[in-house]
Amino acid sequence: MNSNVIDAVREKSPLIHHITNHVVMNFSANGLLSFGGSPIMAKEEQEVEEIVQVADGLLLNIGTAVEQDYKSMIRAGIKANDRGIPVLFDPVGVGASQFRQANVQKLLKEITPTVIKGNAAEIAYLADVKWKAKGVDAVGDGNVIELAEKAFDRYQCPVVLTGKRDVIVTAGKTVTNKTGHRWLERITGAGCLLGTIITSCISVDGDLQEQLKEAVYFYGLAAEYASQLQHVKGPGTFIPHFIDALSYDLTFLKEATK
Amino acid sequence: MNSNVIDAVREKSPLIHHITNHVVMNFSANGLLSFGGSPIMAKEEQEVEEIVQVADGLLLNIGTAVEQDYKSMIRAGIKANDRGIPVLFDPVGVGASQFRQANVQKLLKEITPTVIKGNAAEIAYLADVKWKAKGVDAVGDGNVIELAEKAFDRYQCPVVLTGKRDVIVTAGKTVTNKTGHRWLERITGAGCLLGTIITSCISVDGDLQEQLKEAVYFYGLAAEYASQLQHVKGPGTFIPHFIDALSYDLTFLKEATK
Amino acid sequence: MNSNVIDAVREKSPLIHHITNHVVMNFSANGLLSFGGSPIMAKEEQEVEEIVQVADGLLLNIGTAVEQDYKSMIRAGIKANDRGIPVLFDPVGVGASQFRQANVQKLLKEITPTVIKGNAAEIAYLADVKWKAKGVDAVGDGNVIELAEKAFDRYQCPVVLTGKRDVIVTAGKTVTNKTGHRWLERITGAGCLLGTIITSCISVDGDLQEQLKEAVYFYGLAAEYASQLQHVKGPGTFIPHFIDALSYDLTFLKEATK
Repeated sequence: MNSNVIDAVREKSPLIHHITNHVVMNFSANGLLSFGGSPIMAKEEQEVEEIVQVADGLLLNIGTAVEQDYKSMIRAGIKANDRGIPVLFDPVGVGASQFRQANVQKLLKEITPTVIKGNAAEIAYLADVKWKAKGVDAVGDGNVIELAEKAFDRYQCPVVLTGKRDVIVTAGKTVTNKTGHRWLERITGAGCLLGTIITSCISVDGDLQEQLKEAVYFYGLAAEYASQLQHVKGPGTFIPHFIDALSYDLTFLKEATK
Repeated sequence: MNSNVIDAVREKSPLIHHITNHVVMNFSANGLLSFGGSPIMAKEEQEVEEIVQVADGLLLNIGTAVEQDYKSMIRAGIKANDRGIPVLFDPVGVGASQFRQANVQKLLKEITPTVIKGNAAEIAYLADVKWKAKGVDAVGDGNVIELAEKAFDRYQCPVVLTGKRDVIVTAGKTVTNKTGHRWLERITGAGCLLGTIITSCISVDGDLQEQLKEAVYFYGLAAEYASQLQHVKGPGTFIPHFIDALSYDLTFLKEATK
Repeated sequence: MNSNVIDAVREKSPLIHHITNHVVMNFSANGLLSFGGSPIMAKEEQEVEEIVQVADGLLLNIGTAVEQDYKSMIRAGIKANDRGIPVLFDPVGVGASQFRQANVQKLLKEITPTVIKGNAAEIAYLADVKWKAKGVDAVGDGNVIELAEKAFDRYQCPVVLTGKRDVIVTAGKTVTNKTGHRWLERITGAGCLLGTIITSCISVDGDLQEQLKEAVYFYGLAAEYASQLQHVKGPGTFIPHFIDALSYDLTFLKEATK
């Protein structure tokens, strides 16, 4: 036996529509294909509703978004909300500019994410708590559980806060996760691809809390597995082996990282 | 001896202008460089004619195109037609939205591709035949030869239809190809990069039918070779080894995959 | 002991704001993270000043720039000049179109780069000397030292000219570098990532000449190291191992490539 959640993704191969940043498009698409889902990436405002119409999930990531991209995201998000398919929102570097802040506020008024995923600095910004950031990366090590719960309370939306300890908050329940590897911080888009993997896991039938937990746990375990391989000598060789590991069974990864 | 077509590409190192989707730019450029050609990617409408002026071939791929990109593609395509250099058109996910359909119709009125390359669902859309698609990927296994020939008849344009069995239709001749590996469907941009490789092969002197056949055959063989290597353990590690294999001799790949 | 320059980068982990071409974003970000810096990539004109406000260095690369991107570059560059943080300018394929030429002229009137980095054809264009180019790549082997010095004189700006022999010109001093490997010409973005690495090296305290020399020397050595590894069989497998090597100590690379 593997995992109900991951087995269900591989059975269904959900089509995930991405409106995401340019830096991670290739990595996100390859990661999702390896994991067992189907990526599609399109941002022309005139077509996003039709794409969402056939998609099983929607991922919105603002990493390199320009003004027009927010319009496409909002239009896609409203359609996804209408259809009742899951929407994951990744507020990459939201604190970095007034432009991002204003557009994220607007976006969160117009659409209802199923999950908000971000690092401590991003979640802190959304929760209106002071936190240190460096560019799009969070620094510091405060009370991340309190932080994630505050964001949940404010938006009444499940939160995945990533870091050395990941925090998952759903209605009435908070859990943490410790799988992962420091090289995830030495490659670009590790958080973004996790957003993609989570979106695919919440696009199948099941319990949201269970799906989030399984996605985050599996992702970290795949990183641990890849990092310990003999041929992996740094963040560069880590990447292809990590993508491989996303295609493996959870049971295998558990055994292999014991 | 290797292959007349591939040797000619490596001798000439044709400059291929890409107006292509953002997901596959890096993969396409690295694949072409490894194979022996020279990529250039530019989409500002004001400069595409000058780029085409010095290019040996033009690839147009609509995967993530927004409205402005179609204007640049049409302008580049008209210039390429004027100069008599080959134009490969890749109608990625054309059936996915009315926006794509309308813009592709317009594009095909204004420019004459040398080759149209697509998967079954894309070619079916162009040929006005019903077919199933999932996002940008084709599903199902109908009569692909009939499909490709129908598209050829409709556009009076050579067609490469990719899939488990690739179909190549040129004036008065249809051939099929069976090289390839299932991992090409588990990485993003395998079809897009094939478009790049084909464009480089039709940018040298020779018989079009021969060039298309050789490009598709070689590409699949490179995938077979990479997939069987000891260090390749999944789609992630397949990618760099596949790019390596694109730089090898056809004779070597034939021997090694016997 | 490693290198004062590289140690300082790894100590500080400078945040480098990139407005760069779409082909190399992922490669540049991963290369910088491996080396020890922090990348951020944002091009919305409304936010670039705020991003520059917290950045330690700015890289401007025109490879796939459309008209709007030049506006963002100029605004970011003026802000970087105001703050006194280093600006590296990479005029990718500047000779390829009148559009690039006009916009680069405008950009160089409005902002003062700390360093201009380019291949022979690009530097020749800026220095108003005839040179052959193929797309965005330089061909030919003229007097590159004279060329780089001419560009320095014209713009009163330090120049890094890359090629088989790299030339580094600062006020009153010219040095050359011969580390490197031919596979750097068979992968996309090798010059672009070098621009990123240099930007991080000039974002720490120290002597500019020393920083440029060390960055270029180290980069080439990392390529030599990666190319000779047993598992590297072509440009595809070279890439991840090269990214790995960017995280290593200079002393180790020197020993290992002896």
